Amino acid sequence: MSSPAPPASLTRASVEAAHALIKPHIHDTPVLTNTTLTNLANTRQAPEALQRTQWEGQEPAHPRVKLFFKCENLQRIGAFKVRGAFHAVTRLIEKEGLEQVQRKGVVTHSSGNHAQALALAAKTFSIPAHIVMPSISTPSKIAGTRAQNANIHFSGSTSTEREAVVADVIKDTGATLIPPYDHPHIILGQGTMALEIQDQVDELLASGEKLDAVIAPCGGGGMLSGIAVALHGTGVRVFGAEPSFQGGDDARRGVEAGERVTSVKTLTIADGLRTPLGHHTWNIISNKDYVQALYAVTEQNIKDAMKLVLERMKCFVEPSAVVGLATILYNEDFRNMVQREAGDKTWNIGVVFSGGNTTIEAITKIFAEVPEDRAERQEGVLGRDGRRVAENVAG
Amino acid sequence: MSSPAPPASLTRASVEAAHALIKPHIHDTPVLTNTTLTNLANTRQAPEALQRTQWEGQEPAHPRVKLFFKCENLQRIGAFKVRGAFHAVTRLIEKEGLEQVQRKGVVTHSSGNHAQALALAAKTFSIPAHIVMPSISTPSKIAGTRAQNANIHFSGSTSTEREAVVADVIKDTGATLIPPYDHPHIILGQGTMALEIQDQVDELLASGEKLDAVIAPCGGGGMLSGIAVALHGTGVRVFGAEPSFQGGDDARRGVEAGERVTSVKTLTIADGLRTPLGHHTWNIISNKDYVQALYAVTEQNIKDAMKLVLERMKCFVEPSAVVGLATILYNEDFRNMVQREAGDKTWNIGVVFSGGNTTIEAITKIFAEVPEDRAERQEGVLGRDGRRVAENVAG
Repeated sequence: MSSPAPPASLTRASVEAAHALIKPHIHDTPVLTNTTLTNLANTRQAPEALQRTQWEGQEPAHPRVKLFFKCENLQRIGAFKVRGAFHAVTRLIEKEGLEQVQRKGVVTHSSGNHAQALALAAKTFSIPAHIVMPSISTPSKIAGTRAQNANIHFSGSTSTEREAVVADVIKDTGATLIPPYDHPHIILGQGTMALEIQDQVDELLASGEKLDAVIAPCGGGGMLSGIAVALHGTGVRVFGAEPSFQGGDDARRGVEAGERVTSVKTLTIADGLRTPLGHHTWNIISNKDYVQALYAVTEQNIKDAMKLVLERMKCFVEPSAVVGLATILYNEDFRNMVQREAGDKTWNIGVVFSGGNTTIEAITKIFAEVPEDRAERQEGVLGRDGRRVAENVAG
Repeated sequence: MSSPAPPASLTRASVEAAHALIKPHIHDTPVLTNTTLTNLANTRQAPEALQRTQWEGQEPAHPRVKLFFKCENLQRIGAFKVRGAFHAVTRLIEKEGLEQVQRKGVVTHSSGNHAQALALAAKTFSIPAHIVMPSISTPSKIAGTRAQNANIHFSGSTSTEREAVVADVIKDTGATLIPPYDHPHIILGQGTMALEIQDQVDELLASGEKLDAVIAPCGGGGMLSGIAVALHGTGVRVFGAEPSFQGGDDARRGVEAGERVTSVKTLTIADGLRTPLGHHTWNIISNKDYVQALYAVTEQNIKDAMKLVLERMKCFVEPSAVVGLATILYNEDFRNMVQREAGDKTWNIGVVFSGGNTTIEAITKIFAEVPEDRAERQEGVLGRDGRRVAENVAG
């Protein structure tokens, strides 16, 4: 099977150009290390931990790694999404002129971090932002977006209903659509974090050593494909991590089958990763020259990793943020691959914590709940509170 | 009333000497800023927020501050306590020789952060550590201390019972007692963080500006008195913060009455601050040349501040860590004082986050629970789980 080719405009040089543009507007988030978590990653899992998994009866792997955590939970609005939003808005201003963009505005459909990120970027340049949100969005997300002075337009939950409202906004205002992930400017913006990770890890390491790999969460794939573009040709390997719950590992399954999965219905606790890949992100992520492999983790893996990051590392992260760490700690395919490929070396791995936008209330629910509860509700495609859940369709 | 004088050995110079000694063993924890929290501190409280408080009907104060958070939750073992423990152990080795200390060991009675800190410091120098813990201590604290190779000796919950076990250990082994807070070496060790705060804040500020004040939690007072010694004579003001629940503000009450409160029984959620001041810490904290004032906050104030630090600042902290921030945000006496004393200036305030040793389970309980529940249980001097609660008596 021949690999699809990313567009020629998506290169490390264009990520560097994006970085120069957005740097004044984003936080230079820290890269942290943690002895407890690195030690845990270097310890074999107990054989009992593999019972009732696909690795039952195998000898647990013994990889040698050093972990470097890129804390995008400390980014503005609490997630990496501002990188892509500021880049897309800045490029739009370059192309159409500030006055024109200020007159027409920007629009997106999102109930999550992208909505707040776009609203912040627009506010920074005095551009009107129109955010189309399902009317069933949580009040805290609505309030957070409103706090950035955005105009909120409520819609139904299906993609058709949302797109209809977006089309209305564009007809009324002339606003430009800034999609949440499947756009070259968004991909390049998110990729900027990879440049920082490389610099920061190299600075933390003794001379002679360097970054060997980066692992990042994969939902719509904007961040993972941006990182892959930024690191292409550098020798740093790039891996993606997804939740397996209810088919949430759509990117992994698509790559395995050689065909993009375009629709996903999952209520994984990693709620930022419920979306399928888009056209652009698929072309990059399904190309092994860019993303070496994808791995999936269970809901329990995500909860265990999240507990470690909160309690031991003292970092407040959302469930989506820890799927990379969960892969390193609990996925024996990943752990065996590292053991095999690293040989005698210790791999220095950059681990992206993508965001920290959750609440004490949400954490309480996640840790009180057994996954089966959610599975049952899902059969009727019902949300936590019994309301109908939006189907996530590739943008 | 004449102020008691701290011993001549407690000076900024001796804190600097302590810092030089312990630096190889501790983390240089970051000082973080947060726009949301600083903006909130600069916003008047709503008049309704003062209803049913002692400030009801007053015009809410409007202080002008910039906040700098010293993140000792990112310190080794997750709390500032390693500073004092490493200092006390290093000084003991200086005095008695390493071999002698290795033969006899060290001992303390604590179920909290000091136990783990002393165990770590002892392990670093291959010294046996004996930790006397009430047998009702939470399993996670016992496991955490055991993980540092300490010898755990269980005792009853009262101070008499604990001291009897400590005396037995000393008789059997010749171990030296390293108390949790009321010792000059512990005080000097904890004070080292103040030197770092000064340097870090000055570096973050534009030239010409400097640190104006530090506010820190006060339990036994080791940290607060150490900070006060370190900053004495520098012009930087030092304030203490305590929980008011069930008389947890013993230091404030003692200073007001001119006499040390030597016994406290409180089940405040700020469980690191349930102890009264000791002899040494009282002498420093009750002296207005060292600590300008003490303030108290309610359980709800602590919960509100903790929610902000977790959800907005993405820092994982324990309840005791946020009483300083809670004072800045919600105590009108403090806010009026700043408004009055700062005049036209904006005060740069160092805010100590003392530790992050809590769990998702504990946070879930804290946020599910109304304070009255605890008050009721306290009447029978019963713990959360109905077991008898240890009375905290000054060491």
